[in-house]
Amino acid sequence: MSHAPNPGRLRHFVTAFAALLDSKPPEVQILRDGGALLRQLIAVDDWLPDAYALPQPERYQQYLLHADSAERFSIVSFVWGPGQATPIHDHTVWGLIGMLRGAETSQAYRYTQDGRLQASGAAVKLTPGAVELLSPGLGDIHKVHNTLADSVSVSIHVYGANIGAVQRSVFAEDGSHKTFISGYSNTHLPNIWDRSKELKQP
Amino acid sequence: MSHAPNPGRLRHFVTAFAALLDSKPPEVQILRDGGALLRQLIAVDDWLPDAYALPQPERYQQYLLHADSAERFSIVSFVWGPGQATPIHDHTVWGLIGMLRGAETSQAYRYTQDGRLQASGAAVKLTPGAVELLSPGLGDIHKVHNTLADSVSVSIHVYGANIGAVQRSVFAEDGSHKTFISGYSNTHLPNIWDRSKELKQP
Ligand SMILES: [Fe+3]
Ligand SMILES: [Fe+3]
Ligand SMILES: [Mg+2]
Repeated sequence: MSHAPNPGRLRHFVTAFAALLDSKPPEVQILRDGGALLRQLIAVDDWLPDAYALPQPERYQQYLLHADSAERFSIVSFVWGPGQATPIHDHTVWGLIGMLRGAETSQAYRYTQDGRLQASGAAVKLTPGAVELLSPGLGDIHKVHNTLADSVSVSIHVYGANIGAVQRSVFAEDGSHKTFISGYSNTHLPNIWDRSKELKQP
Repeated sequence: MSHAPNPGRLRHFVTAFAALLDSKPPEVQILRDGGALLRQLIAVDDWLPDAYALPQPERYQQYLLHADSAERFSIVSFVWGPGQATPIHDHTVWGLIGMLRGAETSQAYRYTQDGRLQASGAAVKLTPGAVELLSPGLGDIHKVHNTLADSVSVSIHVYGANIGAVQRSVFAEDGSHKTFISGYSNTHLPNIWDRSKELKQP
């Protein structure tokens, strides 16, 4: 792993997010205040180790960066190779998506009265610094793709669960769906907890 | 990293420990109930990836396995090469030490009235399955060494903080001390959160 100069930024985000959740706030507050924290995190791009920003030719990568001890939240680096895309899928838990590099485009879908899925509203393009919110109560079915056809994009996702272990669904436009569990692309997490070099030795 | 067959055991320990702490119990309950959880974890030796059990010739290794989002606790694999030992040191936070492989010997120290340190009580030898408790209120100064002169020992430690970032002290027998922050030996943590293979796909 190459060392990003400021891994402490991610650690500060984790501890601040945990403090936010400790007050057991309603989802809307998690999305608002957690979204503000995520906006701070992605405002500077000097903390993500290179190993968690590597694209793979076969498909987009989902690198777990941190999982909360009680699986209250998880943080994932999504890395999009040129032109890569997800299927239409849901999340079942709240989510925050913050764009770090490049751009991604999210298209929401809704069920029609006759049980098919159709695109709903305009596609949303995220550029660095932007944060999108996902709430199952508002409808959290979407399809996402790398806006850039010729380069890598990276977004930082926060979910209200250990998202790689959540049973979710992928959908076809005819409204049919299949359940899936995403897992993660990585077998190691970054150690963001070693402060021995930052802390002043007396 | 070679994959231990049951990394899920560590994940279960983490989530159970987090649930224990969620009730904000007094320290004695953390040590009692957390100690019981640790005893379960170390009762079977099939979950620690090899990368976190590797000795180094220079000194004992401290591999962080998990840090809680709010730094309420951390879990560390201590790996002792043949005959390796710590200096006399303290912890400043509660601790649990569970022996996984080999054996280690802990000698407690106390200050005498004239300000020197002296060994206090008999040395405690831990063998696999045993759990030792550390409480700053009871005095948590000790020196630990690998009981085995010719092979590797591994113990699993749980502390009431992100221990690698805690300012602590090492002591000389004349009672003098120096502060230190241990840090960790590893730059990656094991990803124990991917349950996609364990969870039955419907
Ligand atoms: Fe999504
Ligand atoms: Fe110790
Ligand atoms: Mg936690």
